[in-house]
Amino acid sequence: MPIGPVEKGAALASVADVVSKNRAMYIGWLEEACSIPTVAEEPEALAEMAGWLEAKFESLGAATERLTYDGAPDAILARIGAGDRTLLIYDHYDVQPVDPIELWDSKPFEPTTRDGKLFARGCADNKGDLVARIAALHAHIEAHSAIPVSIKFLVEGEEETGSKSFDEMSLRYSERITADGCIWEGHGIDHASRPEFVFGAKGLAYVELTHRGLSDDQHSSLAVVAPSPAWHMIEALATLRAPDGTVTIDGFYDDVVKPNEKDIEMLRNFPFEEEEERLRLGVESFVGGVTGLDFLQRYFFEPTCNIAGIVSGFTVPNASKTVLPKEVMAKLDMRLVPNQDPNDIVKKLRSHLDKRGFQDIEIKTFSMEHPVRSDAESLVARASLAAAGDVFDQPVAAAPMMIGTGPMWPIAGRLGIPTVSPAGVCRPDSNIHAPNENVRLDDFLRVIEYTSAYLVRFATLDA
Amino acid sequence: MPIGPVEKGAALASVADVVSKNRAMYIGWLEEACSIPTVAEEPEALAEMAGWLEAKFESLGAATERLTYDGAPDAILARIGAGDRTLLIYDHYDVQPVDPIELWDSKPFEPTTRDGKLFARGCADNKGDLVARIAALHAHIEAHSAIPVSIKFLVEGEEETGSKSFDEMSLRYSERITADGCIWEGHGIDHASRPEFVFGAKGLAYVELTHRGLSDDQHSSLAVVAPSPAWHMIEALATLRAPDGTVTIDGFYDDVVKPNEKDIEMLRNFPFEEEEERLRLGVESFVGGVTGLDFLQRYFFEPTCNIAGIVSGFTVPNASKTVLPKEVMAKLDMRLVPNQDPNDIVKKLRSHLDKRGFQDIEIKTFSMEHPVRSDAESLVARASLAAAGDVFDQPVAAAPMMIGTGPMWPIAGRLGIPTVSPAGVCRPDSNIHAPNENVRLDDFLRVIEYTSAYLVRFATLDA
Repeated sequence: MPIGPVEKGAALASVADVVSKNRAMYIGWLEEACSIPTVAEEPEALAEMAGWLEAKFESLGAATERLTYDGAPDAILARIGAGDRTLLIYDHYDVQPVDPIELWDSKPFEPTTRDGKLFARGCADNKGDLVARIAALHAHIEAHSAIPVSIKFLVEGEEETGSKSFDEMSLRYSERITADGCIWEGHGIDHASRPEFVFGAKGLAYVELTHRGLSDDQHSSLAVVAPSPAWHMIEALATLRAPDGTVTIDGFYDDVVKPNEKDIEMLRNFPFEEEEERLRLGVESFVGGVTGLDFLQRYFFEPTCNIAGIVSGFTVPNASKTVLPKEVMAKLDMRLVPNQDPNDIVKKLRSHLDKRGFQDIEIKTFSMEHPVRSDAESLVARASLAAAGDVFDQPVAAAPMMIGTGPMWPIAGRLGIPTVSPAGVCRPDSNIHAPNENVRLDDFLRVIEYTSAYLVRFATLDA
Repeated sequence: MPIGPVEKGAALASVADVVSKNRAMYIGWLEEACSIPTVAEEPEALAEMAGWLEAKFESLGAATERLTYDGAPDAILARIGAGDRTLLIYDHYDVQPVDPIELWDSKPFEPTTRDGKLFARGCADNKGDLVARIAALHAHIEAHSAIPVSIKFLVEGEEETGSKSFDEMSLRYSERITADGCIWEGHGIDHASRPEFVFGAKGLAYVELTHRGLSDDQHSSLAVVAPSPAWHMIEALATLRAPDGTVTIDGFYDDVVKPNEKDIEMLRNFPFEEEEERLRLGVESFVGGVTGLDFLQRYFFEPTCNIAGIVSGFTVPNASKTVLPKEVMAKLDMRLVPNQDPNDIVKKLRSHLDKRGFQDIEIKTFSMEHPVRSDAESLVARASLAAAGDVFDQPVAAAPMMIGTGPMWPIAGRLGIPTVSPAGVCRPDSNIHAPNENVRLDDFLRVIEYTSAYLVRFATLDA
């Protein structure tokens, strides 16, 4: 990972001072943002948050506009700063639902600080990064009087429900959002406090397979002559994947791009405590028995076919009921890697099943996301890594792609804007998408400094 | 099916008259019995019912005693009548739970008559037969002044929860209940009003398979390296059964007795509307594509391995959640045929799974019932069939075994008492084990007459 020479900390003394001085105010902004219950079911809260963002951006001197799309919460696009280079910043202001609410130690939309951590739904995913980046604009202006690049700060409100409109929205407003590089929502900080970077995301094809093969549930004695929908599904599923994790859907790997020399080099430098992860999962070995570099190649470069759920018939534990169930449902989520196309993969699944006599299994598609990779040596990538050296004490953990999925493809893929998901406030124990979501306030303040640092790096690094 | 010559209706004119005269009283007895909520969770109701039976039997001149077994409701053994031959009659006084209660059109323990049918939980299974048989003793005495055989009338109270104690109880009291033949609870009347007879029952091995392979549910992106318990179970299940219904557990068929010439002959005479059954099930064809005699051979003589239930992970329809579930459960019910042994079958399943790397799948056993067949040409069998000709207008539907399971093995198998489950009050639309259980009052009265008729046949047929 080539990173330009840096004078560690040199440029940022004043920003650090500003952040230290404005600590309470910036944390107050985060608390304000986290007090607004921006779950998908609360359109008024989403609207309130959009207004809060406009006001905050405008107070910094930004020009804002709303990017609208039928049925989607408005996205906010704020423009601020000036320079030869244009940086797109992507964040989202919606949050995950709070259930199971009873497992929260404090109310999810009443931000509470305990032991240096702020607890609130969304404080880590993604309001922590969002507010830190806004605060960074404030701090940078206070320290340096101006923002050295032309920033397009895009905040959407539909990410946690799959960014259903973001693809079309970003196409409709492509001229407005085009940029020389994009900073995606923060990837995080790992358990060893290393700032994490990824330059892409796996894709997703999420399907629900259903099969109803009988008019009604039957007494199980009839299973001797009545076809079993559950067995039919088991037989179908058994054709989709080998025990070593290889997906056996016809043509599944046709478009998979293998890692190249540089990718392998990046993996060699990627710090990963494999044994800790094995113990955390509670398993004897990983899928396919992989370890070391093989593990990392599988981790980052292999697609999956996972059973997210399956159900049929009588499922009460420790009880018996003799029933032949009329129907069965299985949910598969397939994580895809470049250049697999989720729509093509679903077509392949359909034809694979049809060819084997499973035409009667219905496929319904849910989240469909393209996998995407961006150049890890682009300007924005190098700037984000260089800035990490300015601010963080630990070496970086940089990987080609996140193993999860995000709506990065419309920007990094179709619009071709080099994109990096850099260090952010999320840690493994931030409980994102779970009760007691939290962010360490030190991390929040560090990300303010970090954001200011990469503005400088992005403005000044050699192209 | 050789049946002795009969003079149709000759012996029974007076019993029919008595039944006609006492119609309201006998129906009143059934209503009384059905008013007592004898579900397993109501020990007081079970005790009340046992008392009701004692009083009723004693009012007919029977001597009663209680067969007790720790933890089980008392069984009632009533002795009445005298003759060279001893007939054991088996019924049960407990009933299925009433849930889902909201689907009942009248209260399950407030018997209600509509359109010639009595509606109440248990009115068909098995209080209809039970009370009809008691009423038959009354009617027979009134018509003929005496019962021509020595009757041992055994009524247990634990059948609907699997007769858990009946095996041991029948062994403990074997000398008390031994007999020349046994009339089991009635098999029923088919959709074409043909009286139904079976001379045995399939067995059952019901197991719950569980596998927990991860400390916790994980984000599905980790499926790339974390072993999936759900896939592991699918792989295991896929080794247990072929698409044509053949069970592929090692050694599963070792002890299966094939039908002999006489069995095939019985099947040839068995009336079965295959096409109607196919349409009722809503299927294009039966398991293995069988029709005709092949269908009947499969129906009555083949064991099964059915999936009664399976569950893992996220199962909300029409929704997506990207989870790698930590555990999976599947319930298998295996209907067994003579001479398969349920305990042996579970051992074979265990060793089959172990041999294929599925040692980590736990097996828990639930209902375990031995399959059993009795001689279809025994005295009690011939008597029951001959009596059908005396009372019913339609030809009989006689089959070697029921395709379901009942606790017949302790009597017909281990104690070796020839046993038949003869015509009874249950019809396909009686909704046994379901809301709005019902019995046609005409059927109830007919079974009173029928029971009286087979007492005569059992007393008088050539050995």
